[in-house]
Amino acid sequence: MTPSLTRSLLAERHRPTLESATRALRERGHFSAFSDNPRDYPREAGAAAFEALTQRRFDLDQPGTDAWVGGEVSPYGIPLGISYPHPDPEVLLPAMRAALPAWRDAGPEARALVCAEILARLADRTAELAHAVMHTTGQGYAMALQAGGPNALDRGLEAVAAALEAQTAHPAQAEWTRPRGRHEPLRIASTFTPVPRGVALLVGCRTFPTWNGYPGLFASLATGNPVLVKPHPRAVLPLALTVATARRVLAEAGFDPQLVALAAEGENEYSARALAVRDEVRIVDYTGSSAFGDWLEENAGQARVFTEKSGVNTVLVDSTDHYGGLLPNLAFSLSLFSGQMCTTPQNLLIPREGIETDQGHRSFDQVVADLAAAVEALLGDERRAASLLGAVAEPGVLSRLASAGETGEVALASREFAHPEFPEGRVRTPLLVRLDARQPDAERTLLAEWFGPVAFAVAVDSTAEALALLRRTLRERGALTVLGHTTSKEVEAALVEVCLDERAQLSLNLTGGVHVNQTAAFADYHGTGGNPAGNAALVDGAFVATRFHWAQVRRPA
Amino acid sequence: MTPSLTRSLLAERHRPTLESATRALRERGHFSAFSDNPRDYPREAGAAAFEALTQRRFDLDQPGTDAWVGGEVSPYGIPLGISYPHPDPEVLLPAMRAALPAWRDAGPEARALVCAEILARLADRTAELAHAVMHTTGQGYAMALQAGGPNALDRGLEAVAAALEAQTAHPAQAEWTRPRGRHEPLRIASTFTPVPRGVALLVGCRTFPTWNGYPGLFASLATGNPVLVKPHPRAVLPLALTVATARRVLAEAGFDPQLVALAAEGENEYSARALAVRDEVRIVDYTGSSAFGDWLEENAGQARVFTEKSGVNTVLVDSTDHYGGLLPNLAFSLSLFSGQMCTTPQNLLIPREGIETDQGHRSFDQVVADLAAAVEALLGDERRAASLLGAVAEPGVLSRLASAGETGEVALASREFAHPEFPEGRVRTPLLVRLDARQPDAERTLLAEWFGPVAFAVAVDSTAEALALLRRTLRERGALTVLGHTTSKEVEAALVEVCLDERAQLSLNLTGGVHVNQTAAFADYHGTGGNPAGNAALVDGAFVATRFHWAQVRRPA
Repeated sequence: MTPSLTRSLLAERHRPTLESATRALRERGHFSAFSDNPRDYPREAGAAAFEALTQRRFDLDQPGTDAWVGGEVSPYGIPLGISYPHPDPEVLLPAMRAALPAWRDAGPEARALVCAEILARLADRTAELAHAVMHTTGQGYAMALQAGGPNALDRGLEAVAAALEAQTAHPAQAEWTRPRGRHEPLRIASTFTPVPRGVALLVGCRTFPTWNGYPGLFASLATGNPVLVKPHPRAVLPLALTVATARRVLAEAGFDPQLVALAAEGENEYSARALAVRDEVRIVDYTGSSAFGDWLEENAGQARVFTEKSGVNTVLVDSTDHYGGLLPNLAFSLSLFSGQMCTTPQNLLIPREGIETDQGHRSFDQVVADLAAAVEALLGDERRAASLLGAVAEPGVLSRLASAGETGEVALASREFAHPEFPEGRVRTPLLVRLDARQPDAERTLLAEWFGPVAFAVAVDSTAEALALLRRTLRERGALTVLGHTTSKEVEAALVEVCLDERAQLSLNLTGGVHVNQTAAFADYHGTGGNPAGNAALVDGAFVATRFHWAQVRRPA
Repeated sequence: MTPSLTRSLLAERHRPTLESATRALRERGHFSAFSDNPRDYPREAGAAAFEALTQRRFDLDQPGTDAWVGGEVSPYGIPLGISYPHPDPEVLLPAMRAALPAWRDAGPEARALVCAEILARLADRTAELAHAVMHTTGQGYAMALQAGGPNALDRGLEAVAAALEAQTAHPAQAEWTRPRGRHEPLRIASTFTPVPRGVALLVGCRTFPTWNGYPGLFASLATGNPVLVKPHPRAVLPLALTVATARRVLAEAGFDPQLVALAAEGENEYSARALAVRDEVRIVDYTGSSAFGDWLEENAGQARVFTEKSGVNTVLVDSTDHYGGLLPNLAFSLSLFSGQMCTTPQNLLIPREGIETDQGHRSFDQVVADLAAAVEALLGDERRAASLLGAVAEPGVLSRLASAGETGEVALASREFAHPEFPEGRVRTPLLVRLDARQPDAERTLLAEWFGPVAFAVAVDSTAEALALLRRTLRERGALTVLGHTTSKEVEAALVEVCLDERAQLSLNLTGGVHVNQTAAFADYHGTGGNPAGNAALVDGAFVATRFHWAQVRRPA
């Protein structure tokens, strides 16, 4: 049977996008293949499509399904009532392995084109995906659409482009001719084939299942590896939609749909632990807690393990020439998705003597009060606040909020916020706690991750002390982001030095529409892979180059 | 003090070489920056330089030297009498760490230029290095010169070029401008700095200290990591010369010589075990036994570990259209350095019904007899044989030879060979043993590595059985090389399929001057990194991309 998606059709559709994407990777300027303007997507149709998925089985026609599992409840209060296939790995994994050779033999360009088609089909379902992300993660609709849809698709495309570049870094055939003086030259003709490592396991996370999942998924698939997707048990739907879309496209393109499969897990099954150490599994991508990330790095020795774990993100405030921009920018970063981003700042280090600003000297107390006021101003409009904050994904965040309030003096209390649309939603505003670095227990507080809407305004003796605390935090706990505010070239240089030494990503003096917790595909790296917050960066050369090997065949020419 | 090796001087000397090298990597044709014709190097002067190093201390002026150790005895019978600095890691490692920031800040091009100068200085010492390699590894002089000198330098240059490419895959600065309709566009200016992982540990091997050592050494150094070189205790001198040369060049170029240091070990100290798990050590490169390689992969979790371990190399003989070329080609591969290469074939799988050749049908017995005769013919000339065979490095090889002879019927006995120049040398000719795959213990024999001059001519029921045995060998033991001889397109396709599936490098129908145990830098990959013989390939993208991270600094533009 001729596949309906022929190679030439795919090439016509996607080659220009792939070319633009690989160029963007090399130039690192602005590039996006997918609009992230919510108005470009039909919200009502998306809601209807989402509704149609709920209260039923999500069938993927996978081999070896031995149970139907699922118990997602939207952080906005709605049980989704969807059940997903739970696999018998003894059946599913061999089926996935069997799909590998044809996918490998298709070559890097064909794989990239198929991946691009999967991304395009997912883009067609953006509004539906947005609802799925919203009602599993708790993100507000606009954010769920942007971060869960187009921004995630761009990160996926970035991985596809990087994988294509790595696999076409040199020709697939080459001739080697070595002169030998009066003798005939030696001649060898070689073929070079990128060969995949084996089955890749994607262990999805709760809060950003697509944005954090797509890079690994598409990097593995584009380099020839079948991908088994094990979503977080309370954020299955976005990845189930992804798997369904990928399987359909693969089949239409004439490939075995078993190349991408879903492994939903039962309540308290923790199936990733068993799957990650299976011999078939040769790649693991993981986003989540440091505890399990460390376990994977130590125990899944048969696989390459790519982790994004937890860290402690720091803001160092030394001085600013745009105080009026610093405050709303930071308030936004603390409030967005109620601080449930791995990139949200936690520790705000501020000299106890205050800081110099374009509005004159500001005391420590004043800065804290101004920041609290900026958060309140940002969240003053109820509809906007609801969209910005989203809902709290994990109930554990609520108890963490309560404990955090006891670590110091509350500068801004976390409020329970009545969502205008979903009265059952768990919505909380950010908590800002004042701490003094001299307090005996401050260190223990500041070197822990308080995932959720928790920030500490920390009085430090000096910028030098702040730099030392930053260095220690990065070394011991790692971070996805560091933000510095300073007008001093010396302090800036010292901040850069610390971040290079400890391998952390640094943003400086953000006072406008760019926020420390957001990165752009093709331009910005997410993480470095070089500090304790994770061993992988999205998307650098190491993220793709280690997913395949070169197999060379030499023949006399 | 102005360094005597200025950046512009280095650029003038080496930029053209680096450009040629990076182009060669992308094209994978023939390229070599260093002549490997022994006549281009002054043997007598090299011998004199080597002599001058013996019977004394090899001082490197390293901090933290707490003892002088060394007990090298040439496999040709000469004790070298050299002692080397043994480090106190508590002193040496902090000194190396302290050298890192300036080296990192120098940037990728400056590092590549300094590495190129180190390679050029080593090239100036080729004849001296050749003697050092010969009298530590046991290689014959010509091979020690070629493989230990220019071919190793080419592999080092290949690593430098690959590292430079990876670190300059995109600009060091970029601007990101995101349009926002009627609003001002968002603008961010970013800098991207490749930052090293930390101290790299090179664990050298006995038989090819430079050839197997230079790729890791130069890949790490070129990506900004200080390198601690822990040579095999009986093959220190080649790497000590390398370290001395590197330190001198670094100092002349204005960098801290502690960036490259030697860690010689005492007898039975096994210091690699302690060094590899130290927190400062973030990269380990290792060539040697599977036992310790596996240990490193499992235990040095704080580091990226690159291994080349042992494997079982197979030759599958199905048919040939150049029987007269097959025999001497294979005889050479078995004899070169008396089989002490990680790439030497071990199991020769031949259908028991015999094979079709351009000289008509040849029975199994005939093929084995013809091969034995080809080996004897190759080694008929005493001087040539001495140069080709070299000496046996490890006494353990001799007992292994004896055991191997008991596994089956000896088709060609290993002879003790009186070296014309070094009567004390341990020189042995290859042993060829006939085995039948049906023998009950054949499997145990064939799935073990018999490092040294040991080959098994194995009668198999059919080519299909040979392919199955090859697949099993690759899966369970791995291999650096596979060689196939066939005139059948179907058998060739099946061989390719097995090697792609099991991620092994394949050579086909070698009957001339190219041998399966030799690979050329820039054109050929050495290993794939994807089977149990090791997790690294020389030199692919993964070999360099995982040695550094990208640190980005974002500022409003």
